[in-house]
Amino acid sequence: MSDTRSLPVLESAVVPCCPPLTERPLSAEEAERTAKMFKALGDPVRLRLFSAVASHEGGEACVCDISDVGVSQPTVSHHLKKLREAGLLTSERRGTWVYYRVEPSVLAAMGQLLSAA
Amino acid sequence: MSDTRSLPVLESAVVPCCPPLTERPLSAEEAERTAKMFKALGDPVRLRLFSAVASHEGGEACVCDISDVGVSQPTVSHHLKKLREAGLLTSERRGTWVYYRVEPSVLAAMGQLLSAA
Repeated sequence: MSDTRSLPVLESAVVPCCPPLTERPLSAEEAERTAKMFKALGDPVRLRLFSAVASHEGGEACVCDISDVGVSQPTVSHHLKKLREAGLLTSERRGTWVYYRVEPSVLAAMGQLLSAA
Repeated sequence: MSDTRSLPVLESAVVPCCPPLTERPLSAEEAERTAKMFKALGDPVRLRLFSAVASHEGGEACVCDISDVGVSQPTVSHHLKKLREAGLLTSERRGTWVYYRVEPSVLAAMGQLLSAA
Protein backbone atom coordinates (compact mmCIF):
# COMPACT_ATOMS: atom_id res chain seq x y z
CA MET A 1 0.00 0.00 0.00
CA SER A 2 2.56 2.61 -0.95
CA ASP A 3 2.06 4.52 -4.14
CA THR A 4 -1.15 6.48 -4.17
CA ARG A 5 -0.24 9.35 -6.37
CA SER A 6 -3.04 11.13 -8.08
CA LEU A 7 -6.19 10.23 -6.16
CA PRO A 8 -5.47 9.49 -2.50
CA VAL A 9 -8.90 10.60 -1.36
CA LEU A 10 -10.72 8.42 -3.87
CA GLU A 11 -8.70 5.41 -2.85
CA SER A 12 -9.62 5.51 0.80
CA ALA A 13 -13.24 6.00 -0.22
CA VAL A 14 -13.45 2.91 -2.36
CA VAL A 15 -11.04 0.31 -1.03
CA PRO A 16 -13.27 -2.45 0.20
CA CYS A 17 -13.46 -3.06 3.85
CA CYS A 18 -14.25 -6.63 3.94
CA PRO A 19 -12.98 -10.06 4.81
CA PRO A 20 -13.30 -12.98 2.37
CA LEU A 21 -16.90 -13.54 1.32
CA THR A 22 -16.63 -17.03 2.79
CA GLU A 23 -15.88 -15.71 6.28
CA ARG A 24 -19.09 -13.94 7.28
CA PRO A 25 -22.12 -12.32 5.60
CA LEU A 26 -21.45 -8.79 4.39
CA SER A 27 -23.41 -5.97 5.96
CA ALA A 28 -25.70 -3.89 3.75
CA GLU A 29 -23.23 -1.04 3.76
CA GLU A 30 -20.25 -3.25 2.91
CA ALA A 31 -22.18 -4.90 0.09
CA GLU A 32 -23.27 -1.54 -1.31
CA ARG A 33 -19.66 -0.37 -1.56
CA THR A 34 -18.23 -3.61 -2.87
CA ALA A 35 -20.93 -4.37 -5.43
CA LYS A 36 -19.99 -1.18 -7.30
CA MET A 37 -16.60 -2.63 -8.13
CA PHE A 38 -17.93 -5.97 -9.28
CA LYS A 39 -20.56 -4.19 -11.34
CA ALA A 40 -17.88 -2.14 -13.08
CA LEU A 41 -16.22 -5.37 -14.22
CA GLY A 42 -19.56 -6.95 -15.11
CA ASP A 43 -19.56 -5.57 -18.65
CA PRO A 44 -17.52 -7.40 -21.31
CA VAL A 45 -16.17 -4.24 -22.94
CA ARG A 46 -15.16 -2.70 -19.62
CA LEU A 47 -13.55 -5.95 -18.55
CA ARG A 48 -11.50 -6.05 -21.75
CA LEU A 49 -10.49 -2.43 -21.31
CA PHE A 50 -9.54 -3.07 -17.71
CA SER A 51 -7.33 -5.99 -18.71
CA ALA A 52 -5.86 -3.90 -21.54
CA VAL A 53 -4.82 -1.20 -19.08
CA ALA A 54 -3.72 -3.67 -16.40
CA SER A 55 -1.51 -5.60 -18.78
CA HIS A 56 -0.15 -2.65 -20.76
CA GLU A 57 3.55 -1.89 -20.72
CA GLY A 58 4.43 0.09 -17.63
CA GLY A 59 1.07 -0.70 -16.04
CA GLU A 60 -0.67 2.27 -17.60
CA ALA A 61 -2.39 3.18 -20.82
CA CYS A 62 -4.17 6.05 -22.48
CA VAL A 63 -7.11 5.89 -24.87
CA CYS A 64 -4.51 6.31 -27.63
CA ASP A 65 -3.03 2.92 -26.66
CA ILE A 66 -6.33 1.07 -26.79
CA SER A 67 -8.00 0.68 -30.11
CA ASP A 68 -8.66 -2.99 -30.63
CA VAL A 69 -11.77 -3.69 -28.58
CA GLY A 70 -14.17 -2.88 -31.39
CA VAL A 71 -15.74 0.26 -29.95
CA SER A 72 -15.19 3.94 -30.73
CA GLN A 73 -12.72 6.09 -28.84
CA PRO A 74 -15.47 8.09 -27.07
CA THR A 75 -16.96 4.78 -25.89
CA VAL A 76 -13.55 3.67 -24.64
CA SER A 77 -13.24 6.97 -22.74
CA HIS A 78 -16.71 6.53 -21.27
CA HIS A 79 -15.94 3.05 -19.96
CA LEU A 80 -12.53 4.06 -18.59
CA LYS A 81 -14.27 6.84 -16.69
CA LYS A 82 -16.73 4.34 -15.23
CA LEU A 83 -13.86 2.13 -14.10
CA ARG A 84 -12.22 5.14 -12.50
CA GLU A 85 -15.42 6.12 -10.73
CA ALA A 86 -15.66 2.60 -9.34
CA GLY A 87 -12.18 3.03 -7.91
CA LEU A 88 -10.55 0.40 -10.11
CA LEU A 89 -8.42 2.81 -12.12
CA THR A 90 -6.71 6.05 -11.30
CA SER A 91 -6.06 8.66 -13.95
CA GLU A 92 -3.58 11.40 -14.63
CA ARG A 93 -3.56 13.92 -17.47
CA ARG A 94 -0.18 14.35 -19.17
CA GLY A 95 -0.24 16.69 -22.14
CA THR A 96 -2.96 15.70 -24.58
CA TRP A 97 -3.82 12.39 -23.04
CA VAL A 98 -5.26 11.01 -19.83
CA TYR A 99 -3.31 7.99 -18.62
CA TYR A 100 -5.06 5.24 -16.69
CA ARG A 101 -3.46 2.93 -14.20
CA VAL A 102 -4.84 0.03 -12.19
CA GLU A 103 -5.21 0.79 -8.50
CA PRO A 104 -3.27 -2.19 -7.07
CA SER A 105 -4.70 -1.97 -3.55
CA VAL A 106 -8.24 -2.23 -4.89
CA LEU A 107 -7.35 -5.18 -7.08
CA ALA A 108 -5.73 -6.90 -4.09
CA ALA A 109 -8.75 -6.21 -1.89
CA MET A 110 -11.13 -7.67 -4.49
CA GLY A 111 -8.89 -10.71 -4.82
CA GLN A 112 -8.98 -11.15 -1.06
CA LEU A 113 -12.77 -10.98 -1.02
CA LEU A 114 -12.83 -13.92 -3.40
CA SER A 115 -10.24 -15.98 -1.59
CA ALA A 116 -11.19 -18.86 0.67
CA ALA A 117 -11.55 -17.85 4.32
CA MET B 1 -37.71 -23.40 -8.74
CA SER B 2 -39.13 -26.89 -9.21
CA ASP B 3 -36.63 -27.64 -11.95
CA THR B 4 -33.69 -27.03 -9.62
CA ARG B 5 -31.43 -30.02 -9.13
CA SER B 6 -27.73 -30.56 -8.89
CA LEU B 7 -26.05 -29.33 -12.05
CA PRO B 8 -22.72 -31.04 -12.56
CA VAL B 9 -22.60 -30.09 -16.23
CA LEU B 10 -22.97 -26.42 -15.48
CA GLU B 11 -19.71 -26.38 -13.57
CA SER B 12 -17.42 -27.18 -16.45
CA ALA B 13 -19.34 -24.77 -18.66
CA VAL B 14 -18.71 -21.69 -16.54
CA VAL B 15 -15.28 -22.01 -14.97
CA PRO B 16 -13.36 -19.10 -16.37
CA CYS B 17 -10.51 -19.66 -18.67
CA CYS B 18 -8.29 -16.81 -18.10
CA PRO B 19 -4.97 -15.67 -16.69
CA PRO B 20 -4.72 -12.71 -14.29
CA LEU B 21 -6.18 -9.54 -15.82
CA THR B 22 -2.77 -7.94 -15.42
CA GLU B 23 -1.11 -10.51 -17.68
CA ARG B 24 -2.65 -9.86 -21.08
CA PRO B 25 -5.81 -8.31 -22.55
CA LEU B 26 -8.77 -10.65 -22.51
CA SER B 27 -10.24 -11.73 -25.81
CA ALA B 28 -13.85 -10.80 -26.57
CA GLU B 29 -14.99 -14.33 -25.91
CA GLU B 30 -13.12 -14.60 -22.61
CA ALA B 31 -14.50 -11.25 -21.47
CA GLU B 32 -18.04 -12.23 -22.40
CA ARG B 33 -17.85 -15.34 -20.24
CA THR B 34 -16.10 -13.74 -17.31
CA ALA B 35 -18.15 -10.53 -17.15
CA LYS B 36 -21.25 -12.63 -16.40
CA MET B 37 -19.76 -13.67 -13.08
CA PHE B 38 -18.69 -10.20 -12.07
CA LYS B 39 -22.09 -8.89 -13.07
CA ALA B 40 -23.79 -11.45 -10.84
CA LEU B 41 -21.84 -10.07 -7.87
CA GLY B 42 -22.44 -6.48 -8.97
CA ASP B 43 -25.71 -6.17 -7.10
CA PRO B 44 -25.62 -5.43 -3.35
CA VAL B 45 -28.41 -7.85 -2.45
CA ARG B 46 -26.90 -10.67 -4.51
CA LEU B 47 -23.49 -10.00 -3.03
CA ARG B 48 -24.91 -10.23 0.50
CA LEU B 49 -26.74 -13.43 -0.35
CA PHE B 50 -23.61 -14.89 -1.89
CA SER B 51 -21.58 -14.12 1.24
CA ALA B 52 -24.43 -15.51 3.39
CA VAL B 53 -24.27 -18.82 1.53
CA ALA B 54 -20.47 -18.85 1.33
CA SER B 55 -20.06 -18.26 5.05
CA HIS B 56 -22.93 -20.45 6.25
CA GLU B 57 -22.22 -23.45 8.42
CA GLY B 58 -21.23 -26.40 6.28
CA GLY B 59 -20.71 -24.17 3.25
CA GLU B 60 -24.31 -24.40 2.12
CA ALA B 61 -27.62 -22.73 2.83
CA CYS B 62 -31.25 -22.85 1.77
CA VAL B 63 -33.64 -19.94 1.43
CA CYS B 64 -34.94 -21.01 4.86
CA ASP B 65 -31.53 -20.14 6.35
CA ILE B 66 -31.42 -16.66 4.85
CA SER B 67 -33.93 -14.16 6.07
CA ASP B 68 -32.01 -11.13 7.25
CA VAL B 69 -31.15 -9.28 4.05
CA GLY B 70 -34.35 -7.25 4.04
CA VAL B 71 -35.99 -8.71 0.95
CA SER B 72 -38.80 -11.22 0.57
CA GLN B 73 -38.23 -14.94 0.22
CA PRO B 74 -39.25 -14.99 -3.47
CA THR B 75 -36.71 -12.22 -4.10
CA VAL B 76 -34.04 -14.23 -2.27
CA SER B 77 -34.91 -17.23 -4.44
CA HIS B 78 -34.74 -15.12 -7.58
CA HIS B 79 -31.26 -13.82 -6.75
CA LEU B 80 -29.95 -17.22 -5.73
CA LYS B 81 -31.12 -18.52 -9.10
CA LYS B 82 -29.23 -15.72 -10.87
CA LEU B 83 -26.08 -16.61 -8.93
CA ARG B 84 -26.53 -20.22 -9.93
CA GLU B 85 -27.03 -19.30 -13.58
CA ALA B 86 -23.80 -17.32 -13.44
CA GLY B 87 -22.03 -20.44 -12.22
CA LEU B 88 -21.20 -19.07 -8.77
CA LEU B 89 -23.48 -21.39 -6.85
CA THR B 90 -24.59 -24.95 -7.35
CA SER B 91 -27.89 -26.19 -6.02
CA GLU B 92 -29.43 -29.42 -4.84
CA ARG B 93 -33.00 -30.15 -3.82
CA ARG B 94 -33.36 -32.12 -0.58
CA GLY B 95 -36.92 -32.59 0.58
CA THR B 96 -38.76 -29.29 0.70
CA TRP B 97 -35.74 -27.05 0.23
CA VAL B 98 -33.15 -26.27 -2.38
CA TYR B 99 -29.68 -26.01 -0.87
CA TYR B 100 -27.10 -23.70 -2.40
CA ARG B 101 -23.38 -24.11 -2.19
CA VAL B 102 -20.52 -21.97 -3.46
CA GLU B 103 -18.69 -23.44 -6.40
CA PRO B 104 -15.09 -23.30 -5.06
CA SER B 105 -13.36 -23.69 -8.42
CA VAL B 106 -15.19 -20.66 -9.79
CA LEU B 107 -14.38 -18.58 -6.74
CA ALA B 108 -10.72 -19.57 -7.05
CA ALA B 109 -10.67 -18.73 -10.75
CA MET B 110 -12.17 -15.30 -10.13
CA GLY B 111 -9.64 -14.69 -7.36
CA GLN B 112 -6.87 -15.62 -9.76
CA LEU B 113 -8.16 -13.20 -12.39
CA LEU B 114 -7.78 -10.42 -9.85
CA SER B 115 -4.37 -11.43 -8.62
CA ALA B 116 -1.22 -9.67 -9.77
CA ALA B 117 0.43 -11.34 -12.76
